[in-house]
Amino acid sequence: MQTIVVALGGNAILARGEKGTFNEQVRNVQKTATQIARLIKEGNRVVITHGNGPQVGNILIQNELGSAMVPPMPMDVCGAESQGMIGYMMQSQIRNALAECGLHIPVCTVVTQTLVDQSDPAFQNPTKPVGPFKDRLHAEARQKEFGEKWIEDSGRGWRRVVPSPDPKAIVEADSIKALVEAGHVVISVGGGGIPVIENGGILRGVEAVIDKDLGAERLAAAVGADSLVILTDVNGAAVDYGTPQERWLGEVTLEELRRYESEGHFQKGSMGPKVRAVIRFIERGGKSGIIAALDKVLEAVRGETGTRVYRSLRQQRAAT
Amino acid sequence: MQTIVVALGGNAILARGEKGTFNEQVRNVQKTATQIARLIKEGNRVVITHGNGPQVGNILIQNELGSAMVPPMPMDVCGAESQGMIGYMMQSQIRNALAECGLHIPVCTVVTQTLVDQSDPAFQNPTKPVGPFKDRLHAEARQKEFGEKWIEDSGRGWRRVVPSPDPKAIVEADSIKALVEAGHVVISVGGGGIPVIENGGILRGVEAVIDKDLGAERLAAAVGADSLVILTDVNGAAVDYGTPQERWLGEVTLEELRRYESEGHFQKGSMGPKVRAVIRFIERGGKSGIIAALDKVLEAVRGETGTRVYRSLRQQRAAT
Repeated sequence: MQTIVVALGGNAILARGEKGTFNEQVRNVQKTATQIARLIKEGNRVVITHGNGPQVGNILIQNELGSAMVPPMPMDVCGAESQGMIGYMMQSQIRNALAECGLHIPVCTVVTQTLVDQSDPAFQNPTKPVGPFKDRLHAEARQKEFGEKWIEDSGRGWRRVVPSPDPKAIVEADSIKALVEAGHVVISVGGGGIPVIENGGILRGVEAVIDKDLGAERLAAAVGADSLVILTDVNGAAVDYGTPQERWLGEVTLEELRRYESEGHFQKGSMGPKVRAVIRFIERGGKSGIIAALDKVLEAVRGETGTRVYRSLRQQRAAT
Repeated sequence: MQTIVVALGGNAILARGEKGTFNEQVRNVQKTATQIARLIKEGNRVVITHGNGPQVGNILIQNELGSAMVPPMPMDVCGAESQGMIGYMMQSQIRNALAECGLHIPVCTVVTQTLVDQSDPAFQNPTKPVGPFKDRLHAEARQKEFGEKWIEDSGRGWRRVVPSPDPKAIVEADSIKALVEAGHVVISVGGGGIPVIENGGILRGVEAVIDKDLGAERLAAAVGADSLVILTDVNGAAVDYGTPQERWLGEVTLEELRRYESEGHFQKGSMGPKVRAVIRFIERGGKSGIIAALDKVLEAVRGETGTRVYRSLRQQRAAT
């Protein structure tokens, strides 16, 4: 039985153009849960992680609009709320989807902190936009009063940016591992995990956002996964993306993918971190890294579609 | 080594009269975590659950005030958010408090659903107030548009009431038990758990609130706990409470406590469910049920303070 860490993108929960009503999110999560249940039914041990961008964005807006009556919470707490929210919807739907397949496997969500390095250069250079668009006056007031960094976003208004430090370790790794080894389906490291720094053995949350794909790689390492499968809304990575020379990658070696990465083929904040995550996973001992579309997860794990990265050609041939 | 389920009241996180800022909550949780760490250091295996009334109340207000921009979530989802929020604060502070004692024990939060019975009479008679006070017009509009039930609360305004069904089983019991047996500190069943009903094997969240002490009893049964310790802001249960005959209960037998309960000594929605929870725990095979003040948890577990209930006099003598 192989252990697969599945990283779900935003579209697994909230599709582009949707408002994010409960019914919309549950419908999307239901579809996602059906895919996960199929993967488990085929005999795979599955560990799940997910993005939380739109949800934590909504919670930040609610915090702001409710601030006259309710003290707003810092970003780490809002991230924890989003883990509870998304985790609940997922564990409920995955449990139900498994029950419909006649499988009675425990499913649960572990609230997760991810350790980052206090001296990570990202803290000097916040780049990740969070929360709603605002006008210049609002941005300047927040910069002055709270020391937040805001940037103008290509004519759409001003937006707060926070650091996106590199994830070092999953704080709750032992608990997640114990559950996975007991055969339970675990949802964890939501939104890349709640970023925490360590000081003299004490952990403290920070206002930052961890890339969920890089967090997924740390999770995959923590549970000793065979495969890291990153699901998104396109069927893999492409070189010369968006040009007449565009070419979708199927099976690639680590070396090849590293070369494409260094040539700048993969977009920052989009395909970039997904490619980085699978490269790291293979470099650190993982067997296969896959980037594929959510609705083709079974085919991708079977090696029929998506971008699949192996350590060497020999391994690649053995797998297919 | 005995296994103790500790149920934390609202005062463990948010003290009366506080607004609920992050700093206030973290300070309270830190104090609580120090108590928990002492309990663990003394050689007890500890499983934690907690209330979420003020927090879920705040999230409901944020949902309402943010509704022009963000679709409000149903109560079950808000409950899940509060589990993430409180769970994160607790697991972080308990981990830190243990580290300060030189103990490196994994701590985590499991998002938890609690099964209730669809035919529970509580669904016909909602009694549990939730969310903010409103005026009659607002209440009537909500009643008409959404079929919510609102009641006038002794001159303070109108408030929504929801059903408070009896908890039947903890859906994530297997996962919680696996972690507890592996020696991890688990926070779960927050706010009594997210109430779900079952229909043809499929679970679905409902708009209701489960009493956290009765939920704690189900948790204690699920993990096979020796003791259920309910912590609050008074040091136990009293008969003739608030009268000149008021008498605080120390050691009592199950029979005695049942008699006091049937005589109506314990207030509904306050000491009532705490007493009910410890009675049920002992009736169903638990060794000792304790109601005590948060800052005296160690002394209470040692049998020195608080209301302690045992199955029989013989057991009582053996324990002290």
